[in-house]
Amino acid sequence: MQIAKVRGTVVSTQKDPSLRGVKLLLLQLVDEEGRILSEYEVAADIVGAGVDEWVLVSRGSAARQILGNEQRPIDAAVVAIIDTVHVEDRLIYSKKNQYR
Amino acid sequence: MQIAKVRGTVVSTQKDPSLRGVKLLLLQLVDEEGRILSEYEVAADIVGAGVDEWVLVSRGSAARQILGNEQRPIDAAVVAIIDTVHVEDRLIYSKKNQYR
Amino acid sequence: MQIAKVRGTVVSTQKDPSLRGVKLLLLQLVDEEGRILSEYEVAADIVGAGVDEWVLVSRGSAARQILGNEQRPIDAAVVAIIDTVHVEDRLIYSKKNQYR
Amino acid sequence: MQIAKVRGTVVSTQKDPSLRGVKLLLLQLVDEEGRILSEYEVAADIVGAGVDEWVLVSRGSAARQILGNEQRPIDAAVVAIIDTVHVEDRLIYSKKNQYR
Amino acid sequence: MQIAKVRGTVVSTQKDPSLRGVKLLLLQLVDEEGRILSEYEVAADIVGAGVDEWVLVSRGSAARQILGNEQRPIDAAVVAIIDTVHVEDRLIYSKKNQYR
Repeated sequence: MQIAKVRGTVVSTQKDPSLRGVKLLLLQLVDEEGRILSEYEVAADIVGAGVDEWVLVSRGSAARQILGNEQRPIDAAVVAIIDTVHVEDRLIYSKKNQYR
Repeated sequence: MQIAKVRGTVVSTQKDPSLRGVKLLLLQLVDEEGRILSEYEVAADIVGAGVDEWVLVSRGSAARQILGNEQRPIDAAVVAIIDTVHVEDRLIYSKKNQYR
Repeated sequence: MQIAKVRGTVVSTQKDPSLRGVKLLLLQLVDEEGRILSEYEVAADIVGAGVDEWVLVSRGSAARQILGNEQRPIDAAVVAIIDTVHVEDRLIYSKKNQYR
Repeated sequence: MQIAKVRGTVVSTQKDPSLRGVKLLLLQLVDEEGRILSEYEVAADIVGAGVDEWVLVSRGSAARQILGNEQRPIDAAVVAIIDTVHVEDRLIYSKKNQYR
Repeated sequence: MQIAKVRGTVVSTQKDPSLRGVKLLLLQLVDEEGRILSEYEVAADIVGAGVDEWVLVSRGSAARQILGNEQRPIDAAVVAIIDTVHVEDRLIYSKKNQYR
């Protein structure tokens, strides 16, 4: 999985019928030091992530292992909202500090 | 999924029989600020996207989760025509403005 | 799918038994302006493509959606020989012109 | 598979229910000379790897071939803790030397 | 598939039980002109490839299409030992010449 920051949303009316009601978030990938990368992903969200939160994104067939997504033509999904990222003894990210 | 702009079409007569009748679009990927990237994808289209429209493209086995594509040897499909892309409070793309 | 040009062949005697009789082509990827890229792919061919022809290559599990390939350990296959590539109004490639 | 070094952990409370109890490690990829690369992966761990150990990480659907992971939305898993890496006659890495 | 040169081995004791008895080779990818690239892959080997030989490596779910690998968490496998690589009329590689 990759660490990503929720940046925005993508809205579509004309789409594969199975995508109705699926929230699509625009995520920007984050490196292991917490820097925003230029790579992005549009991912289906079922965990209710909000803008600026850090999340884990799964790509490929993993995105369809989520209840309800099994037959959707999606190749990326938010699978977790991140509380903390530790690299060795350093706290790289904490959701609590972020929103304090 | 990645955001892409429809640029053109690819036509083939001699091909895997399962691809007969499948429209193949040449898409160019777009970054999160709306800039056209050099990366492209040839994708099966079932939503009826036209040149210059922005779409969502799914890659890998996701492309075969679309009704009728289940057994086609395709690794990319247009799954949605994009109405709007928002990054935080900014409107990066709006189909309506594009065609006004 | 990616656009690729057939450049050569790869021959192997000692291989997974399921690969016997499978023609393996060396393809070099082509960008959306028709330029040859440094990226290449060795792909199973069932459509009978020849050197210098432009083809569509599918990668990943898509390569095994072709009749006879279902259980072969291949991650790339030629799925179509390209007749024409159009980008907006420009004809980027035409098989007919190529061989005239 | 890629060689990676365990660097830290990612913790999440709000996540896909199937991920409860799954340990998520932050791995940084290592090249064939043993140099740490900038590319990283957050991977499910079932082999009990610790910080600084070198591991093998499998990506894509392979991550779900591990007992218990079959239906989890994960696209990367630690599948082995590495004892040694040899390139020709040179010993690039030895777990024993690392911890002596 | 990609062309790769066998460079070494990776040994592990503590691993997913299904990987017992699987030989893991360190491969370095080769470009279409025969130059060694910096990209590498650790792949399961069932064809008995030796150091310095050129092989074809399949990645992703293709690696599990080999008899015995179906349920192993591997994302790369050696599927063939290469005899020759031809690019147009040039012989880029010949196993026979290599070992003469």
